[in-house]
Amino acid sequence: MFEAAELGRKVDKDTFAAAEADLRRSLLEVQRRARENQLPIIILIAGVAGAGKGQVINRLLEWLDSRGVRVHAYWDETDEELQRPHWWRYWRTMPSAGSIGVMLGAWYSPSLFGRKDKSDNEQILAARADRIVNTERMLVQEGVLILKFWCHLPEKEQAKRVKQRKKDPESHWRMAPETIHYANHYKRFIHNASRLISETDTEDAPWYLIEATDHRYRDLTIGLTLLNAIGARLDAPPVSSVLKTSHAPVLPETPSARINVLDRVDLNQTLSHKLYSRQIDYWQVEVNRLSWEAFRKRRPCVVVFEGWDAAGKGGAIRRLSESIDARLYSVIPVIAPNDEERVHHYLWRFWRHVPRDGYCTIFDRSWYGRVLVERIEKFAQLAEWARAYHEINDFEAQLAEHGIVVTKFWLHIDKDEQLRRFHSREQIPYKQHKITPDDWRNREHWDAYRTAVNEMVVRTSTDHAPWEIIPANDKHLARIKVLSVFAKRLEAALDS
Amino acid sequence: MFEAAELGRKVDKDTFAAAEADLRRSLLEVQRRARENQLPIIILIAGVAGAGKGQVINRLLEWLDSRGVRVHAYWDETDEELQRPHWWRYWRTMPSAGSIGVMLGAWYSPSLFGRKDKSDNEQILAARADRIVNTERMLVQEGVLILKFWCHLPEKEQAKRVKQRKKDPESHWRMAPETIHYANHYKRFIHNASRLISETDTEDAPWYLIEATDHRYRDLTIGLTLLNAIGARLDAPPVSSVLKTSHAPVLPETPSARINVLDRVDLNQTLSHKLYSRQIDYWQVEVNRLSWEAFRKRRPCVVVFEGWDAAGKGGAIRRLSESIDARLYSVIPVIAPNDEERVHHYLWRFWRHVPRDGYCTIFDRSWYGRVLVERIEKFAQLAEWARAYHEINDFEAQLAEHGIVVTKFWLHIDKDEQLRRFHSREQIPYKQHKITPDDWRNREHWDAYRTAVNEMVVRTSTDHAPWEIIPANDKHLARIKVLSVFAKRLEAALDS
Repeated sequence: MFEAAELGRKVDKDTFAAAEADLRRSLLEVQRRARENQLPIIILIAGVAGAGKGQVINRLLEWLDSRGVRVHAYWDETDEELQRPHWWRYWRTMPSAGSIGVMLGAWYSPSLFGRKDKSDNEQILAARADRIVNTERMLVQEGVLILKFWCHLPEKEQAKRVKQRKKDPESHWRMAPETIHYANHYKRFIHNASRLISETDTEDAPWYLIEATDHRYRDLTIGLTLLNAIGARLDAPPVSSVLKTSHAPVLPETPSARINVLDRVDLNQTLSHKLYSRQIDYWQVEVNRLSWEAFRKRRPCVVVFEGWDAAGKGGAIRRLSESIDARLYSVIPVIAPNDEERVHHYLWRFWRHVPRDGYCTIFDRSWYGRVLVERIEKFAQLAEWARAYHEINDFEAQLAEHGIVVTKFWLHIDKDEQLRRFHSREQIPYKQHKITPDDWRNREHWDAYRTAVNEMVVRTSTDHAPWEIIPANDKHLARIKVLSVFAKRLEAALDS
Repeated sequence: MFEAAELGRKVDKDTFAAAEADLRRSLLEVQRRARENQLPIIILIAGVAGAGKGQVINRLLEWLDSRGVRVHAYWDETDEELQRPHWWRYWRTMPSAGSIGVMLGAWYSPSLFGRKDKSDNEQILAARADRIVNTERMLVQEGVLILKFWCHLPEKEQAKRVKQRKKDPESHWRMAPETIHYANHYKRFIHNASRLISETDTEDAPWYLIEATDHRYRDLTIGLTLLNAIGARLDAPPVSSVLKTSHAPVLPETPSARINVLDRVDLNQTLSHKLYSRQIDYWQVEVNRLSWEAFRKRRPCVVVFEGWDAAGKGGAIRRLSESIDARLYSVIPVIAPNDEERVHHYLWRFWRHVPRDGYCTIFDRSWYGRVLVERIEKFAQLAEWARAYHEINDFEAQLAEHGIVVTKFWLHIDKDEQLRRFHSREQIPYKQHKITPDDWRNREHWDAYRTAVNEMVVRTSTDHAPWEIIPANDKHLARIKVLSVFAKRLEAALDS
């Protein structure tokens, strides 16, 4: 593939100067329009050592209005990064709507230095390429423009530069210390690169292969490509969010086809107060012990609480959290996004709270809002929530791959019990704040929620992050189930 | 001081139950009002080991609407925290306007375990107490309500609990592993605590000493104190921002008294193109070499750029940043705050970007906006910008104490040169975006800015963070000065 970038293309000084003034003006203009249109842009710069990636970045900072640009290099990982799923560091630095993130290497770098002779290198490359393709598609579908540039040098040219720079003390400074090491493994590097590029060169997020031997040709080509790509995107109609197929399966009109996972929950179970007192003590001690063990073994946990309004999420969360030392957990209440959150991908605000190794994050409501309230209230369009199942599964798979123990609870009550609790909340002064007009409105959508919950469970209950549907008409029973399910999952994970 | 918390106060079960329902309702009500009034609240919980700080937190989460509360424990520092000034971890977790942050120990914990027999323990305690008092006052002045609770147990009671819990496997779980160790040093702990409490018990942020032997008395007292303190604050007029004295010194009406630091800058200096080319190569190599050395030696840098509109900040920043490997620096353009930034103290958004050890953050405009544009445009009131000098000095002192090399540039041009550049920008298509109505308006306030710059330099040029006023009528000269001043400061710091 790289032959096309070894053709000896050049731009002379005068041609460059003539083109540059125009290009700068136009780039600033599309940047302004992109900001107005709240378009987030990722400019990813990768390529062989010595091809001048740093120079390209300096050029972009010169040409663009640098106040709207942030440059990110991914290097020298901190323990906060190492103790979280690999993609966490990229999510931290995603550009917000209307701004430009220039990313050096980003999610491509870790794959470029794999060793060809290692037997599992090819499988690792393939798995990483898959994840990249999925994630880039997801970003593009949410409206991000991704531009990926590969700056190429032929092997001989690279060797020449390394040699030259070693000799010349004045230009040696532009070369980072490890450049030379990488240059010594050109063939391995190019093998990995060509495979990775071909597998990730998609319609959504294409690669631009740039011949980098001549720096003027390199910069001008990148500048013009940027200009065209941003301009084309701004002129094109917004990313289509029309889904061609009707999403929900058409169910035959028979009673048995209408059975929902929630119908199988036995809501008549109860637990006496006496048994409850005994069991809560037991399970809280267990959870405490296990959470310290998880800390020692550096295993993190994520716990998700979803459920009907008034199903008792708050009480269950408190019984769980009070069992854990306050230093080991955070509870994240998921309310309306703030504006920093609103200008990012909807999963961004959850990535922010992924726990470090050994710690626990409890989400009081979660990313499932996308396929529940946002679906039903039509805050998200059909295409958006329909693809969210897959996005969520991928997100949770990344958590699990890193060793995070993921537990998801749906607290289930029936419609009569909800009504009783609404009325009772209205009676108790310190519970009145818990009942709002929203709750009554949600109640009117009961059947729509039932369908949405069923689909959610069907599509996102996985081995590594199963849904636990908790019968919650009896609060005591529900709390014991939550504690015991969590304790057992954590224990199994710690023993494995 | 602790005698007052060893009186054997108790609350029986029935009294507690009778008071609790009312208290909960009232607490929720003040919490709602605090949210509506955008009041940020810090509830700091400290005290002797075994006094039940964790139980207090669980109680607060039960009584308050937990969606508006975040709990923070400061423990098990990450390298991202260790590699920054000590207070960075507290700034990270400051509650935003309208929310409640419950902080466990926070900035008091590190001082409690100092060793009495160490000769410098007392000085360290005194210095820390000073910083605490300053910072708490600053937060209070910006509108934060700070409530500090010390949960106390007499020595015998603590010893009894430790013994009991060691025996009882069921209650042992509530005690974190190191509790016992701390309990063994009760006297040292109490010595430090009593000193620290007395030095930090201010009108702005008083301590509440809570007798914690009886858990019902403890929780009820904290709850009622919270209720009264938040209620009183909401009923009181907003924190006064009237400054009693006129701030600026009255200058005699003589020409010499009117001389400003900016008048002493020789703006006629120039640098030929030939000399510039040679020197820029030299200094960029130097900066590159030094920035790698700083990385190896783990010394971070902060560089601040301020200056007149069109003084050439952008060009100077680019010459500096292109000398440094893209992995080692970030440029932070300081534009209008986003809403997450707006609901925090004005320094919060700069704390966010304090570099890790070995890295460099370049601020394109900075916290000095408070005493420049915010002063002149009256976005900040007199009292606010007048106290900012001291706040900024303290902030920069914390950076310097951690080893950060702070360099601050004011790029100075005269009024005629500015006019020339405004006109010339209007002529060059790709520079037109740099000239806005704001620039023309700022120009009308030229004299007010001169006064503000003078006062800023006088009040905030310190040994550890001096102002460097750069003559910038000649752009080439200015760029060389910026590079050379930075290189020399960094070199001196690395050699020391």
